[in-house]
Amino acid sequence: MDIEKLRADTPGCAGVAHLNNAGAALPPQPVIDAVAGHFALESSIGGYEAADRGAAAIAHFYDAVAGLIGAHRDEIAYVENATRAWDMAFHSIPFAAGDRIVTTTSEYASNAIAYRQVAGARGVRVTVLPDDEHGTLSLEALAAELARGDVRLVSINHIPTYNGLVNPAAEVGRLCRETGTLYLLDACQSVGQLGVDVREIGCDMLSSTGRKYLRGPRGTGFLYVRRQIVQTLEPPFLDLHSAEWTGPDTYEIAAGARRFETWEWYVAGQIGLGVAAEYAAGIGVAAIEERVTALAATLRDRLAERPGVRLLDRGARRSGLVTFTVDGHGSDAVKAALRAAGVNVSVTTGSHSRFDPKAVPAAVRASVHYYNTGDELGRLLDALPR
Amino acid sequence: MDIEKLRADTPGCAGVAHLNNAGAALPPQPVIDAVAGHFALESSIGGYEAADRGAAAIAHFYDAVAGLIGAHRDEIAYVENATRAWDMAFHSIPFAAGDRIVTTTSEYASNAIAYRQVAGARGVRVTVLPDDEHGTLSLEALAAELARGDVRLVSINHIPTYNGLVNPAAEVGRLCRETGTLYLLDACQSVGQLGVDVREIGCDMLSSTGRKYLRGPRGTGFLYVRRQIVQTLEPPFLDLHSAEWTGPDTYEIAAGARRFETWEWYVAGQIGLGVAAEYAAGIGVAAIEERVTALAATLRDRLAERPGVRLLDRGARRSGLVTFTVDGHGSDAVKAALRAAGVNVSVTTGSHSRFDPKAVPAAVRASVHYYNTGDELGRLLDALPR
Repeated sequence: MDIEKLRADTPGCAGVAHLNNAGAALPPQPVIDAVAGHFALESSIGGYEAADRGAAAIAHFYDAVAGLIGAHRDEIAYVENATRAWDMAFHSIPFAAGDRIVTTTSEYASNAIAYRQVAGARGVRVTVLPDDEHGTLSLEALAAELARGDVRLVSINHIPTYNGLVNPAAEVGRLCRETGTLYLLDACQSVGQLGVDVREIGCDMLSSTGRKYLRGPRGTGFLYVRRQIVQTLEPPFLDLHSAEWTGPDTYEIAAGARRFETWEWYVAGQIGLGVAAEYAAGIGVAAIEERVTALAATLRDRLAERPGVRLLDRGARRSGLVTFTVDGHGSDAVKAALRAAGVNVSVTTGSHSRFDPKAVPAAVRASVHYYNTGDELGRLLDALPR
Repeated sequence: MDIEKLRADTPGCAGVAHLNNAGAALPPQPVIDAVAGHFALESSIGGYEAADRGAAAIAHFYDAVAGLIGAHRDEIAYVENATRAWDMAFHSIPFAAGDRIVTTTSEYASNAIAYRQVAGARGVRVTVLPDDEHGTLSLEALAAELARGDVRLVSINHIPTYNGLVNPAAEVGRLCRETGTLYLLDACQSVGQLGVDVREIGCDMLSSTGRKYLRGPRGTGFLYVRRQIVQTLEPPFLDLHSAEWTGPDTYEIAAGARRFETWEWYVAGQIGLGVAAEYAAGIGVAAIEERVTALAATLRDRLAERPGVRLLDRGARRSGLVTFTVDGHGSDAVKAALRAAGVNVSVTTGSHSRFDPKAVPAAVRASVHYYNTGDELGRLLDALPR
């Protein structure tokens, strides 16, 4: 990986040490050009006329995203963001009273709220798996839950937003396949950071976003739904794109993952996300994963040497998200001090991780990407309040 | 209205006679600059960091849209597109078996599919009002339906996509208020084209898009929900922005229309839509309506003189959408011939208007905006197959 070349291809690298890639990464020039170029074309010749001319670039989105995660293009829906993608998948599941949803302590707040909403409306129960000795979900406990026969859905995140752990997505998939249990994976933080192959993982549905590790535009996301189950799912919202109005009182739902899409969308963003997926594939997800993991490990090692810094990351396997607190300094103040020094990080809040008894009220989150450098990690360490 | 100045402020006007404003209008320079500028800022300093810096422009969106339609800023939600806005409103209504939805022959296909979906799932019934002598919904019939006491929702479009009629939105609102009936107005084609004031109309909820007559970016929309009812509605999807995760098993839905929003969104588009709303208000909606109506009337008059052209528009009051067929020429062929001559129009399809016995299988739709000129109408007429 030629880091200097990749940084030169990323205008934002010139001005800031961007360690907020788990929030939204800096896009590379080809993504910027694709989005800005299509938007300019729309402004010049009209929105639908530009979409006609961009048909190949739009089609490319499906191939590029499918290629990146080992799916087929018909299994990919373009959705406005990861939350909407996840919502469309989750709320298409025909839950019945007594069904159980099994999840993890590290589950994303929005997903947890949706479980609660469905639990209240339909009598579904939610089971939060205990952690194992590494602080990630216990596979032993999952196997025991699945053996009870009432689990309708296993729904977990691949990488949580507030801790550097990586959940054992493929091991969970193996257990779900063995018991024929539906498996929804929130891969918002992992696609573009780790090798994510839906066949290897064995998930039925996977949601992700454009703006994070894929380095795509904000306001973009996608949903993967395995083709063997897509025809069994009726999306919670249908329109004239996801269904056909066949007669005054009848409609027919579209084949494949298109049933989860909407007629109107941010076309420039979709084209940009396709370019971003191709860009990641061009670098190679294995190489990306290796570098992200190594940079994060380096940052953890160096933070560990600092008095007063408490590292919070758990898990036998860790992601590019590095979470910590600094004794005597509020996390918002640390973030502000870093930003003043040209270093972007974010703050996670405990109100977003209420299933996790180990979660702290607030923590600093520094999330590295492959285009970050050891020098940028040094800038963070230098600017950290002592 | 200084048309030459407004055209000079619209880069697309230089290259094309854009008569597809009901598809997506050409944005003016301030909108282009706002969207491109914020996207460039995101690429330069990071997505969330750019949102922090753009906080005033984001806040301005709510004021500008609320100001344009006579609402309060807390009654406005930013949503990805008009379909999602409408979906979030419609699917938040707690329908019970036996409830009726009343709509019109000219209803939008996506809405009709949603009625059918809810009808099938919950035993709701759908009543399509007959047309009056002008070809728009019969207010007399609506009053009779409302008198029966089982109407849960009146849900209509203000201006349909496939016909130049304007529905009597305010008269419908008066009848709904008299009977205390919930009223959802799909204003996708009317905001930015007509004076739309939610208090005058008396609707409870109104959905619209950015890309059409408002001249905003694709992939943007908004939802208005009257503040007196918003607290009674639980959105079909909730996340950590629209609700707060207050404890492992509890959540609290956000106050106001924010409950219909999502944590992640197309920020540059939102800022652009705010600028577009302000731009429309700056020109003045009354002046816009007058010019759009006059241009459309002129186009209809000139088309009426052409042998073989059949005008399809109905209604005592008409919009900027002009629909017609040309004898002996398929509508797709007419559209292609016009595009080859630098004139953008679109084609409507009968499969999108199945409640309407008068709808034709396909028609040409030329939709004018205030920045169009008589000369551009002449270009359409010149290029029309004879």
